[in-house]
Amino acid sequence: MTTSLRSTLDFLLYDWLQTETLNARERFADHSRETFDAVLDTCDRIAREKYAPFNRTVDTQEPHFDGERVTLPQATQDAYDAYAASGMLSAAQDYDIGGMQLPYTVDAAANAFFAVASISISSSLLSVGNANLLMVHGTDVQKQVFALNEFSGRFSGTMCLSEPQAGSSLSDVATRAVPDEAPSVAPDGLVPWDQDPLGPRYRLTGHKMWISSGEHDLSENIVHLVLAKIPGPDGKLVPGTRGISLFIVPKKLVDTEGQLTGVRNDVALAGLNHKLGWRGTTNTLLNFGEGKYPVQGRAGAVGYLVGQPGKGLACMFHMMNEARIGIGMAATMLGLAGYYASLDYAKNRPQGRLMGASGKDAGQPQVRIIEHADVKRMLLAQKSYGEGALALNLFCARLVDEQHTGQPEAADEARLLLEVLTPIAKSWPSEFCLEANSLAIQIHGGYGYTRDFPVEQYWRDNRLNMIHEGTHGIQAADLLGRKVLMENGRGMQLLAARMQATMAQAAAVPELAAYAAQLGDALQQVGAATQAAWATGNPAEALANAVPYMQAFGHTVLAWVWLDVALATLRVDATLSVAASAGRMGAARYFYHYELPKIAAWLNVVNGRDMTCAALSEEAF
Amino acid sequence: MTTSLRSTLDFLLYDWLQTETLNARERFADHSRETFDAVLDTCDRIAREKYAPFNRTVDTQEPHFDGERVTLPQATQDAYDAYAASGMLSAAQDYDIGGMQLPYTVDAAANAFFAVASISISSSLLSVGNANLLMVHGTDVQKQVFALNEFSGRFSGTMCLSEPQAGSSLSDVATRAVPDEAPSVAPDGLVPWDQDPLGPRYRLTGHKMWISSGEHDLSENIVHLVLAKIPGPDGKLVPGTRGISLFIVPKKLVDTEGQLTGVRNDVALAGLNHKLGWRGTTNTLLNFGEGKYPVQGRAGAVGYLVGQPGKGLACMFHMMNEARIGIGMAATMLGLAGYYASLDYAKNRPQGRLMGASGKDAGQPQVRIIEHADVKRMLLAQKSYGEGALALNLFCARLVDEQHTGQPEAADEARLLLEVLTPIAKSWPSEFCLEANSLAIQIHGGYGYTRDFPVEQYWRDNRLNMIHEGTHGIQAADLLGRKVLMENGRGMQLLAARMQATMAQAAAVPELAAYAAQLGDALQQVGAATQAAWATGNPAEALANAVPYMQAFGHTVLAWVWLDVALATLRVDATLSVAASAGRMGAARYFYHYELPKIAAWLNVVNGRDMTCAALSEEAF
Repeated sequence: MTTSLRSTLDFLLYDWLQTETLNARERFADHSRETFDAVLDTCDRIAREKYAPFNRTVDTQEPHFDGERVTLPQATQDAYDAYAASGMLSAAQDYDIGGMQLPYTVDAAANAFFAVASISISSSLLSVGNANLLMVHGTDVQKQVFALNEFSGRFSGTMCLSEPQAGSSLSDVATRAVPDEAPSVAPDGLVPWDQDPLGPRYRLTGHKMWISSGEHDLSENIVHLVLAKIPGPDGKLVPGTRGISLFIVPKKLVDTEGQLTGVRNDVALAGLNHKLGWRGTTNTLLNFGEGKYPVQGRAGAVGYLVGQPGKGLACMFHMMNEARIGIGMAATMLGLAGYYASLDYAKNRPQGRLMGASGKDAGQPQVRIIEHADVKRMLLAQKSYGEGALALNLFCARLVDEQHTGQPEAADEARLLLEVLTPIAKSWPSEFCLEANSLAIQIHGGYGYTRDFPVEQYWRDNRLNMIHEGTHGIQAADLLGRKVLMENGRGMQLLAARMQATMAQAAAVPELAAYAAQLGDALQQVGAATQAAWATGNPAEALANAVPYMQAFGHTVLAWVWLDVALATLRVDATLSVAASAGRMGAARYFYHYELPKIAAWLNVVNGRDMTCAALSEEAF
Repeated sequence: MTTSLRSTLDFLLYDWLQTETLNARERFADHSRETFDAVLDTCDRIAREKYAPFNRTVDTQEPHFDGERVTLPQATQDAYDAYAASGMLSAAQDYDIGGMQLPYTVDAAANAFFAVASISISSSLLSVGNANLLMVHGTDVQKQVFALNEFSGRFSGTMCLSEPQAGSSLSDVATRAVPDEAPSVAPDGLVPWDQDPLGPRYRLTGHKMWISSGEHDLSENIVHLVLAKIPGPDGKLVPGTRGISLFIVPKKLVDTEGQLTGVRNDVALAGLNHKLGWRGTTNTLLNFGEGKYPVQGRAGAVGYLVGQPGKGLACMFHMMNEARIGIGMAATMLGLAGYYASLDYAKNRPQGRLMGASGKDAGQPQVRIIEHADVKRMLLAQKSYGEGALALNLFCARLVDEQHTGQPEAADEARLLLEVLTPIAKSWPSEFCLEANSLAIQIHGGYGYTRDFPVEQYWRDNRLNMIHEGTHGIQAADLLGRKVLMENGRGMQLLAARMQATMAQAAAVPELAAYAAQLGDALQQVGAATQAAWATGNPAEALANAVPYMQAFGHTVLAWVWLDVALATLRVDATLSVAASAGRMGAARYFYHYELPKIAAWLNVVNGRDMTCAALSEEAF
């Protein structure tokens, strides 16, 4: 499995994205293909040793809560420790805080090995995102005390947005934060709430739902980043998202050196969610400030304000965008895990005979199922979904590097392209790599439906990705309602220009010219649908079919990615890897023959601002 | 849930299929809408009391095998007993063997209540199919001893086709059957093997995989119907499917009165399969004749030949066709179960605000999620898939009645239409009602991913249906490779004529005329694709894209069903049920706007006999 993945990553990183050219930039000057390869090698090895063998273990030994402590399999602790020891938590950080100054592109590629081995053990995503947020929005002390300890693995992190009654609707956050006036609980002595060295100190009360890694003993401490509202002078919460502030709420209180003070904060696990999959990671309902662990005799979870009051959501979005690309990568790697498993099965399982020109099969020898056309179709679909999604996600990672280290104009373009592509990078793999997992089950036949083979777990694990970090519907509304419109449509124009550049190259290659034309047509259709959706300027009409729009948009983006990957495939010396090149060209062809034509049906309803669903009365269902 | 289902069944049975007109036929002369309704009422009640409350129980308390006995939850026994007591096992049979002479259409509709309540408790399908096969192909004694005891519920039945090494490839069956020469084990004394009153007596040895209900104590005995090969004079098995014979292999030996003789037959449970879903039904690997339960001191499972040697597969196909329609119905009812659950959730869960013309939402009151356009889209898709599939399956059931009780010409047409429609009735719900279940999860958001709500189980349970009783790929090869060609394409022509008749009616209705034209176009496209696929006469080319062909064919059939249902909706007095009529018209519109346009992409590759997948070398994957 990891051999195939490694060769695909090598091609995408070096031949396609030319990641080595980043080394010309000052930040990455110490790096080379050798240092990149060393990181990939290390991650591949740790993932094979500490993750892959325990993927089924963490599924069957679900987290257990006895009312006081959460029990996880020993394998989870071992994997956590090995990952922290590898330095990957801080790989992209500056040297001066212990990082490797690794390009994010390589960081993302290296983390793919953990995701493909066991998606639900590898829950480091949130700790890194949490710490990254603090590096941007936190004070120096907050960075030192919380972020750096997350990068080292001493502490882990969560993001606490949703509440049981509000789900995706953040404007309805009801968690309250009031100044922690007296007596002081500052770890370093009596300090007024607004002079606490860790940040303005509040007491929080409320419930947070769907909190991944919300309770465990894997790390010394857990750093919760919590959205809450500070009541106005009338004691009421500001309606809408404007009133939301962001707080650091550690599970255990710490001093300004980051040492535990021995005082448990008033954050209690109300219960674990029992999930369909992704069971290696705890998912929790947390009660903040209910008084189970009173601090200095009083209920209320101690929290330190991050950034300005009322600006919490903007800070959190920083973390959410990273998380969304991370989810796209998770969905992608589950899709590829299923592909590798079903490819292996198809190569080894003998069954049936070839359909000869005569249509008769008796008497011929049995063949392995990879020789059947329909099995090949299901394999090529998976390859096309999984490797295409991987390319898109690495392209997005490359844009992150460009945004952070490129020249100002290029950095700004990268930022805007990322805005447009993030909903696709999250939603497309979540939908189509899930479909890939279903095909992997199908190839296994009855065996795929048993727990003796890994593919049913991939499918269950992957079903989460269309839900968390913004559902499919929310991604679609973000894309059509915000991203394609922002800055007068400049993001969309930038994306179109990138596609045009690829098409121009491909038009000159006989093998790809027809695909270039097909992509041009698709792009034109998406552009026309965008106009048609907004022709009346009424969001209720424009967004009624936002999901089919996103599906068509996503397929068009993936078609572009595959055309660009095909160009790179033809550019490299194909004699070096005849089979791999043939595979990539086959997957690209598959996408143009079988997939891209699907956009017409999706755009049909967008173009007509079809209100068949939206206008149907509730009673009619 | 069952209120909605009942009103949908009433509409489809009485207003659409006009099932009451069957009562003019002699076989059904004692029946009336009142007797039909009484059966529906009874099944609805038993399903609500004995099935629905235990659907999660049978999922969490998976069958357990301690090496001797299989343990199932008590609820499974209670459900089995209640079902047997209801008389539904023999409802369609003749009065003189204790049946009700109920039309199969009503029988299928009544069984829908059990399927929607708990698909995996309700595993009576195989017993009825098994007994039906014996009623057609068995001797009088075999009917009396085995079939009638299955209809009463005393015995239950299985079908044993697959083997661990062969799966779908029946020509590779390796189970051997040799005459049971001496000493005799005939229950009624010393009888030569070829004069046994229960049928020519053989000893079987071999392994059968994926046997549902293969071992349990729910009934007094289990009647296995087993495919095996009788060696030729040279001791070798005939290759291919021609050598296959069919045997009755009871778990416990019985006398000619059907009484247990106290002798256990040599059939042993080798192990239970641990599945992704459908856990209320045991699924087993059975060892025949390995000597664990020697009969008269010798290894070898005692089996009685059914029909002629070498003709076993033809007999078994009788059972398989029924089973395939049964699977379509199972998939359908899981799809509808998810629809009802997510509809209920959407009507009660408040979250978010409406997207006003201004695009702003703060300050407005929260709404229930059914008011969001994207949630309505996901609900209407489910309704359109589930109710459309239900209509198709009931239409097929009505064809069964026509085949059995119609005038000769109509009966023959029904037979041939069933041949063509069976792969669609099985495959289409398996694929699209599974998608419906995924949408039901999506509507629930994070809650849908937990085991606190039923939708994740529906999705897991439903994933089996694309696999068992002939995989998707096998249905597709059957459709394009056999069914549309048989009798010079007459089945396809009959289907087209039915569609044309619907279109002619719809063309005269302003509201439906455009859909009639759209369906005509789709039918023309499917016809052209059928021609194009076979243009070279090479099965390898024709069938390379059999699955996309089947998807397009299925969508076209469903579009026809919805157009016909829409006509019936307009025909009935809409004032009687304004909301239900609006719902059916909405679902029909949804299908034409959102679904039918998808066929172009599927047929694209069929028309081109696209070999992108089939021609890709194994090394390229």
